[in-house]
Amino acid sequence: MKNILILGGDGYLGWPCAMYLSNYGYNVSVVDNYFRRNISKSKNIGSLFENPSLVDRAKEWKKLTNKNIDVAIGDLTNFDFMFGVINKTANFELKSKENSDIPDTIIHFAEQPSAPFSMIDHNKSNFTLTNNIITTNNLINSIKKINKDIHIIKLGTMGEYGTPNIDIEEGWIEITHNERKQNFLFPRQASSIYHTSKIMDTDLLWFAVRTWGIKVTDLMQGPVYGIFTKETALSDNLKTIFNYDEIFGTVINRFITQACIDYPLTIYGKGNQVRGYINIKDSLKCIKLSIDNPPAKSDLRIFNQISETLSVQKIADKIKTACKTINKTINIKYYENPRVESEDHYYNPKYSALQDLGFKPNLFNDEVIIEMIEEVSKYKSNIKKEYIFQGIKW
Amino acid sequence: MKNILILGGDGYLGWPCAMYLSNYGYNVSVVDNYFRRNISKSKNIGSLFENPSLVDRAKEWKKLTNKNIDVAIGDLTNFDFMFGVINKTANFELKSKENSDIPDTIIHFAEQPSAPFSMIDHNKSNFTLTNNIITTNNLINSIKKINKDIHIIKLGTMGEYGTPNIDIEEGWIEITHNERKQNFLFPRQASSIYHTSKIMDTDLLWFAVRTWGIKVTDLMQGPVYGIFTKETALSDNLKTIFNYDEIFGTVINRFITQACIDYPLTIYGKGNQVRGYINIKDSLKCIKLSIDNPPAKSDLRIFNQISETLSVQKIADKIKTACKTINKTINIKYYENPRVESEDHYYNPKYSALQDLGFKPNLFNDEVIIEMIEEVSKYKSNIKKEYIFQGIKW
Repeated sequence: MKNILILGGDGYLGWPCAMYLSNYGYNVSVVDNYFRRNISKSKNIGSLFENPSLVDRAKEWKKLTNKNIDVAIGDLTNFDFMFGVINKTANFELKSKENSDIPDTIIHFAEQPSAPFSMIDHNKSNFTLTNNIITTNNLINSIKKINKDIHIIKLGTMGEYGTPNIDIEEGWIEITHNERKQNFLFPRQASSIYHTSKIMDTDLLWFAVRTWGIKVTDLMQGPVYGIFTKETALSDNLKTIFNYDEIFGTVINRFITQACIDYPLTIYGKGNQVRGYINIKDSLKCIKLSIDNPPAKSDLRIFNQISETLSVQKIADKIKTACKTINKTINIKYYENPRVESEDHYYNPKYSALQDLGFKPNLFNDEVIIEMIEEVSKYKSNIKKEYIFQGIKW
Repeated sequence: MKNILILGGDGYLGWPCAMYLSNYGYNVSVVDNYFRRNISKSKNIGSLFENPSLVDRAKEWKKLTNKNIDVAIGDLTNFDFMFGVINKTANFELKSKENSDIPDTIIHFAEQPSAPFSMIDHNKSNFTLTNNIITTNNLINSIKKINKDIHIIKLGTMGEYGTPNIDIEEGWIEITHNERKQNFLFPRQASSIYHTSKIMDTDLLWFAVRTWGIKVTDLMQGPVYGIFTKETALSDNLKTIFNYDEIFGTVINRFITQACIDYPLTIYGKGNQVRGYINIKDSLKCIKLSIDNPPAKSDLRIFNQISETLSVQKIADKIKTACKTINKTINIKYYENPRVESEDHYYNPKYSALQDLGFKPNLFNDEVIIEMIEEVSKYKSNIKKEYIFQGIKW
C-alpha cells in the first residue's frame, strides 16, 4: 500500500485528508507547525469550536479504527526539518512501524491559505510570501536529494488564473505567435498576495520539473466548503477546523454561519464575481484520484479542481431558497467592495480532466445547505458576530 | 531637478549609475547592505581589485565633482528600513540638503544577481528567493503608503523569458483563444532560481500596478559587460566592483579576464546558447531614458534592455579575432555543460522600445574588447585562476 506524507496535516483539508486516506488503507504521516490552529485562537478569527491537538486527534483515530497516523510537529521553512520529515529521520511525536518508509506521495497543503490575511499589512504579506515559497522550495530541494520519483501533489488555487477574458484551460495553453508556437503555462494574474504566492509556487515546481525531472500534480482548487466528511463525523474529537470570519472563513462557510444566526449575507459589490467551488468531500476524492493515477514520468500535471462555478449572488440565492424549506428567512446586505476585483467579468474554466479519471462532482444544493446549517447551528453560541465582516481593504 | 534613490547602490551597476546620474545633475541617494561587496571577499569569488567603502566612494566623488551622493547602509528586507530610506527618516551615513526630498524615481538593483550562486545549494536558493522577493514587496508596500506617483525602475532580466520557440516581445503578448482575446504578460520560464525570483518580482510589481495604481518600468536586461564608465575612470577610488569568477563574473567579463591570463575560454556545451548583451555604458543610458520618460499614469511598462544578441561561441570568436590585432593568441576549451539549458534553440527578442526613446546601442567590437583587455591586464597579478571554472551544477 502507498505511503503518504501530508504537509499541513492539521489544517481544514489536511486533517480530513489524512483520515480519508488512512481509512482507505494508505500509510499516512502528517506534519504541521500549528500555524492555522494558533492563528484561529487569536483575536478577530472566528472558530466554531476548538479541536484537540494533532497528536490527540491521531490517538482518537487509532482508538476508533486501529489505524496509525504518524505525527511530526515543526516548521517546514526549516530545510533540515523538511528533509528529515521526508526521509523519516526527523523527530515524530507519534511513530509507527507501518508508516516508517519514505513516502511515495507527498501532499503539500503547508501554506498560509488566506487572501485577506495576506492583505492585512506588509508583515502578513511578507510572511505569506516567505512561508509559502520557502516551504515549496525546501520540498523540491529535498525531493531532488532523496528520490525524484516521489510524486508531489501540490494544492494550488483557481485564483492563480484570476478572471481572464479567455477560456481557462487546465494549466497549459498553446500560443501561436508570428507563425511559430509553443505550449506554455496558462497566463496567471491573481488578485491577492496569497494568490500571487501560489503563482510563484507553480513557477518553482515547473522549474524543478524541467531542471531536475521531478513529478508534480498541481491541483488548481476553487474555494472549498463543508463542515464534515465521513471520517470527521465519527467523533467530536475528529472534527476539522471550521472558521467563519472574514479572514479564514471562505465565502460559503461564512454565509452558512451567517444564515444560522440571522446575520444578513454580506455581498461585496454587485455579487457577480464568479468562482469555481468544491465540497470538502469532493476535494478528498480528487486528491485520491491524483494519488492513484500518478504521472508516468517527470511532468507538471495540472488539474482544475472544482465541481461547479457560482457567482456570490447565486450562492446567497441558493442559501435563501434552501432556507425557505425550513421556514428560515435570509436577508442579504450589499457592501461597497473592499477588494480590488472585477465585479462583471467573463469566466469559463475547463474542469474535465479529473472527471475523465472518474470524479463525479456533488453540487451545492438544498440538501447540502440544510445539512450544513443544522450542523453549524449546534455551535451557535460560539459564533462572534463582530468577526464576520471586518472590512479588510485591498 | 529629479530626486533619485538607488537601491543596491554599491553594486556593479548601482555605483556607476549613481555617479552617472549625479553628473547629469540629478539629486542622488544610494542604499546598500554590502552583500555583493562582502561576498566578493569570500573564498572562490574573484574580484579584480578592492573598492573603498560606499561612504568613501561618495566622499571621493564629492571631492572631485563637488556633488553630493547621500549614503545609507542597511538591509532592505527590513520593512522599516526600506520605508525610512524612501521617506528619508532612516539613518544616512552621508546626508545633504539637496538630496533630502522624497525621491521622484527609485531604481531597484537591490537583489542577489547571480544565477550560479542561487544554484549552489538550498540555503543560497532560499536566500535568493527571500532577499529578492521581500525587498521588492517592501518597496511596493512603502510606495503604496508614501506616494503612489513615485516611479519605480526595476532591473529585471531577459532570462525571465528563457529561450521560447516564439518571438520574444517586450513584456506583453496578446493571446487569442477560442475567438476571445486578452493582453497578458509574455510567458516566462527561467533556467535558474535567481531568474525565477525575477519572474516572481514581476508578478509582485504587476499585482501592485493593477491593485494600487503604482508606476513601474521593468527593464528586462541582458548580461552586462564592461569595466568602466566615464565616471568610474575619474579615479581609482571610483571604480566599480569587477568579478571574473564563475559565480559573479558574467560571461563576457569572465572571458576577457581569461584572455588576459591566457586561460582558454571556457565554453559550456556547444556554445550555441544565444542571449542579449549590453555594455555597462549603454545600460546607464537606458536607465536615464527611463527616468526622463516616465509612464504618464499607473502602468507596468516593460523594455527589453539589450544592444545585440550573441551566442557564447560568437563572443569567444570576437575576442579571438580582436586579440589577433594585438598579436595575442586565444584558445577555446569546450566543457560538458554543467547547466540545464538548451544548446540549440530559437531566439528572437524584440528590443526597439528604448531605441524609439533615443537609445543608440554600442556593440561588442574590437575596440571595446581591446580596451577591456588593456584595463583588466593592469590587475593580472590579482587574478586567481582556480576561481574561473568551478563546475557548479544545476
